[in-house]
Amino acid sequence: MKQIENMLGFRESIKVVDATLRDGGLVNDFFFDDEFVRRLYQANIDAGVDYMEMGYRASKKVFDETKFGKWKFSGDEHIREIVGDNNTPLKLAVMADIGRHDKNDFDECANSPVDLVRVATYIHQMPEAIDMIEDAHKKGYETSCNIMAVSNTQEQDLRVALEMVGQSSVDCIYIVDSFGSIYPEQMARIVDIYSDFSVKYGKKLGIHAHNNQQLAFANTIECCGDGVDWLDGTYMGMGRGAGNCAMELLLGFLKNPKYNVYPVLRFVEQNMVSLKQKGIVWGYDLQYLVTGLLNQHPRTAIQFTKEGRTDYSEFYKETFN
Amino acid sequence: MKQIENMLGFRESIKVVDATLRDGGLVNDFFFDDEFVRRLYQANIDAGVDYMEMGYRASKKVFDETKFGKWKFSGDEHIREIVGDNNTPLKLAVMADIGRHDKNDFDECANSPVDLVRVATYIHQMPEAIDMIEDAHKKGYETSCNIMAVSNTQEQDLRVALEMVGQSSVDCIYIVDSFGSIYPEQMARIVDIYSDFSVKYGKKLGIHAHNNQQLAFANTIECCGDGVDWLDGTYMGMGRGAGNCAMELLLGFLKNPKYNVYPVLRFVEQNMVSLKQKGIVWGYDLQYLVTGLLNQHPRTAIQFTKEGRTDYSEFYKETFN
Repeated sequence: MKQIENMLGFRESIKVVDATLRDGGLVNDFFFDDEFVRRLYQANIDAGVDYMEMGYRASKKVFDETKFGKWKFSGDEHIREIVGDNNTPLKLAVMADIGRHDKNDFDECANSPVDLVRVATYIHQMPEAIDMIEDAHKKGYETSCNIMAVSNTQEQDLRVALEMVGQSSVDCIYIVDSFGSIYPEQMARIVDIYSDFSVKYGKKLGIHAHNNQQLAFANTIECCGDGVDWLDGTYMGMGRGAGNCAMELLLGFLKNPKYNVYPVLRFVEQNMVSLKQKGIVWGYDLQYLVTGLLNQHPRTAIQFTKEGRTDYSEFYKETFN
Repeated sequence: MKQIENMLGFRESIKVVDATLRDGGLVNDFFFDDEFVRRLYQANIDAGVDYMEMGYRASKKVFDETKFGKWKFSGDEHIREIVGDNNTPLKLAVMADIGRHDKNDFDECANSPVDLVRVATYIHQMPEAIDMIEDAHKKGYETSCNIMAVSNTQEQDLRVALEMVGQSSVDCIYIVDSFGSIYPEQMARIVDIYSDFSVKYGKKLGIHAHNNQQLAFANTIECCGDGVDWLDGTYMGMGRGAGNCAMELLLGFLKNPKYNVYPVLRFVEQNMVSLKQKGIVWGYDLQYLVTGLLNQHPRTAIQFTKEGRTDYSEFYKETFN
């Protein structure tokens, strides 16, 4: 049993990462206006958040620029329009999604407002992910390796992948519960596996959770108690499908006095309630429970949502087969 | 660490209790129509639920019958209209809320469709609660003692109360996180305290969780892993304020083949989506996070909800002081 006494103290090594623009962007095709982004940036500074993910840096050779907001591509020039030289304690991140990125889109870190490159990869893409990590590392960036869909991965394969990335220059290795299908008790076991390699190679661990079974926050604090240091949250839980660990829950839980939940509450009321009212939909609903329970990608549940369906039992039968 | 291997098996001693009519009734003043209740009863039978709570049995000397639906009073005659003689494996419960009940409203169990009397009490009302437990026990009912607001209770007082109820005829002692303010790690500690007495006196333990911090399900399965046998859920999480552990999540998690999530999904789509559309409001929102975080009764958050407010940051300041 973990020690409750420690819940009144805090661990300096914990870092909170705001992934609202990136995972939330999957809900509205990244059409956040500049004022929203500017306010979110300020809220993160005021709340003591450690990293703000400014979106994906997707390749324009893969995606049509006219079909998405700019935070899908999140160029240095887009970011500078918001943050100038970012003379704040808040560090900035972008995500490179393996197979849909182009490492030539990354300038030297010294020329960029970006501090951290998060490399999202499926386990079968590890060599390309490591190539990207090394490229970003050489350019001077901090890097993380976000191995997606861990719930769908064989433990032996996972151990091979962790050995590979352990030997790389990466700073942090993420557990990513893409399907929102992991229970806290299982999460503790997964952290155990990751820890074998993070300890051996001196890497940090991170957690990125989804809320399909209302467990994103629970899994995040389970990981936190198990020694995982980098914790992803999104304002109001905004993210694909059932969304993510809510930043307001996470900052309410963390005891380091540098964190402050108040700016998060204010940002949500001033900027996100209206998003919901405009019909942007995310968050737990029974179709996401179904795909989470069945350990499947949420794409069918997202389609169910888009079609305005509520015949959950029919969806369960469709999805089960 | 708990043993993940066990997550594929199941414990025969687990009982699932549907509290939709009772805790959900707090949201709509118990105005469920008979067809809703009849279908819920059938869904519970089909889903393999062990107990269905048919509402409160509140005293008509305390509450005005014209202001509430009948499931606040849930007389034997009301219940019989739905279940007849209830020749099914599903057992039925009502809740007696100490100070707002009348033990004379309870006939002998042999004359009643009710199997279980759940006695809800604050810790300072223990003698009256035990009086009610003994009365119900003598009449032939199973009984539980649901000690509310455990997060607001001193451990020394809690141990005294558990010693008192341990010595009573009660069958099951409930942990009730009325304010939704307990984290899973704390829940494990609370189960430890309760277990000292449940083991000593041969009682079952139960968990009734609230979702203020999106932890109702997580806390319920934490308790389940720690040996708590009676697990409360409500369909779609319907319950006061942020609501409860969702039945669909709970039955998705439990592995005993007698449980089936499908009838729950079907009931929700056919009977509860429309409740939400009619404007009946429950479930996680930031005002409930605030009262949960501050370990307060949700009444101010419920009022905030009723007023249609979304100025969460102002509410935080009001509530903090």
